[in-house]
Amino acid sequence: RPLREVLLFPSPPSCTEALLAEAAEPGAAARPCHCPLPHGDCPLSRLLRLLLAARRSLDICLFAFSCPQLGHAVRILHRRGVRVRVVTDAQYMGLCGSQIGILRQDGIQVRHDQESGYMHHKFAVVDGRMLLTGSLNWTTQAIQTNRENVLVTEDAEYVKPFLDEFEKIWEEYNPVNYTFF
Amino acid sequence: RPLREVLLFPSPPSCTEALLAEAAEPGAAARPCHCPLPHGDCPLSRLLRLLLAARRSLDICLFAFSCPQLGHAVRILHRRGVRVRVVTDAQYMGLCGSQIGILRQDGIQVRHDQESGYMHHKFAVVDGRMLLTGSLNWTTQAIQTNRENVLVTEDAEYVKPFLDEFEKIWEEYNPVNYTFF
Repeated sequence: RPLREVLLFPSPPSCTEALLAEAAEPGAAARPCHCPLPHGDCPLSRLLRLLLAARRSLDICLFAFSCPQLGHAVRILHRRGVRVRVVTDAQYMGLCGSQIGILRQDGIQVRHDQESGYMHHKFAVVDGRMLLTGSLNWTTQAIQTNRENVLVTEDAEYVKPFLDEFEKIWEEYNPVNYTFF
Repeated sequence: RPLREVLLFPSPPSCTEALLAEAAEPGAAARPCHCPLPHGDCPLSRLLRLLLAARRSLDICLFAFSCPQLGHAVRILHRRGVRVRVVTDAQYMGLCGSQIGILRQDGIQVRHDQESGYMHHKFAVVDGRMLLTGSLNWTTQAIQTNRENVLVTEDAEYVKPFLDEFEKIWEEYNPVNYTFF
């Protein structure tokens, strides 16, 4: 039965360190966290778990990406050998707090537009079969303070057009096509 | 079989006057339009047709709403007796070009947040059974120049959480709850 789920934000502030530590070093002894934040499940932890389930590939198409926890998760997947590709918007990626530079430093492939319009999508495809799409940019402000939604689906009728869109944009934004004025 | 569809933007500039005129006066003699724009189908015309199919209700939850054609379609539905409810973001609704004031002048119910975070959803539910959700704000810039998506679904597992979210926000944003400083 394919996964069908809707995540709604804002997500209450919560500590996701244990979740990320476990993903970074599976099987390592759990280090209990004593920070004052709640440690239970929340929409952000659910989003992290869905992404961290990637085994082969993660394709991300995101207008704004500045949330450190989501950046950490993506870097863990890259280190684990998952093929990560990121498409983002040129106007936003250089802003203070953007995760894009950190991802690139880690060797993750990132491509961006050269258009006057925004690359305004906010979706990710895990292993070519699970789509996460909605209004949510991956920023702490959006996660903690905005009304947002993420629809999670494994229905091929929804996943395929997004995968096709990703491949199309990925080729269009190939740096060999950049023009410099 | 429930509808499952993905609309991708940008949509090429195109004339939607005939479509809107037909919706405003069903059965009236078609007046051919001689403007220089293309008159064929496009993602915007598809979006308009899906909304104009409403018979009983249209619930809209939208960060930014300034596209005149979509504003026109919503006003046609209101005049036709469809119960239209609009939730929007307080920071955006007063900007130049916003359709919100025009909708209110026509007697359409609009509610907005009083929060520091954004009401950043971009979804609509037609007749309580068809959901349109994605990255697309209803602005001409987004429609004509941005990379955007709208997922269209009649699957109850997706529609219900959005309907519930709409009803929850609609009550929370009831003007009786507004505070004035």
